[in-house]
Amino acid sequence: MTLSDTFYVGPGRADLMELIAETGSISEAARRMGMSYKRAWGLVQALNDGFGAPLVETARGGKEQGASLTEAGREVLERYRGMQEATRKAIARDFEALQALHIDMSIRK
Amino acid sequence: MTLSDTFYVGPGRADLMELIAETGSISEAARRMGMSYKRAWGLVQALNDGFGAPLVETARGGKEQGASLTEAGREVLERYRGMQEATRKAIARDFEALQALHIDMSIRK
Repeated sequence: MTLSDTFYVGPGRADLMELIAETGSISEAARRMGMSYKRAWGLVQALNDGFGAPLVETARGGKEQGASLTEAGREVLERYRGMQEATRKAIARDFEALQALHIDMSIRK
Repeated sequence: MTLSDTFYVGPGRADLMELIAETGSISEAARRMGMSYKRAWGLVQALNDGFGAPLVETARGGKEQGASLTEAGREVLERYRGMQEATRKAIARDFEALQALHIDMSIRK
């Protein structure tokens, strides 16, 4: 979902935010997603800079002390999940019809 | 929208199918999309092979004599457009709320 030239959230970014909220740690969230800390940190920066306000905040003091979502971060994540669910419901009938046609055609092939 | 491991339709493929239906020509559709004939032809092949039945058919006889959507092609395009519209409606409220928050945050920055 693209909000502007500077801000985008997709499934990967949403999962990262969710795991940061769950684990309280960027490095643990990165580990669970099978990505490097460097990549996760880059995504956090992209989220924070792109949105114009922090979505993820880290406790200060040299080494990472823990991370969490800000109020804006929680709202972005919650609305993104809501949009995913609303989309799934909205397309379910057409999706199933196309899938049936696709399978049907493949069998006839 | 991914139907299976072999079949995917996105905005570009949908636009190409729509322009083939409108113009009756793969080369004219390609021209209007600013892509090469070779690329458009490759996409048509991917659509036809991936779906398991032709979505786009071309008149036979050496040089391209014209192209059109098959019945399955029209159904795929129509349902894809329906899904796009349903998605737009389903996410409108959350999308606007996030955009307002995004703009608001950017101003405060």
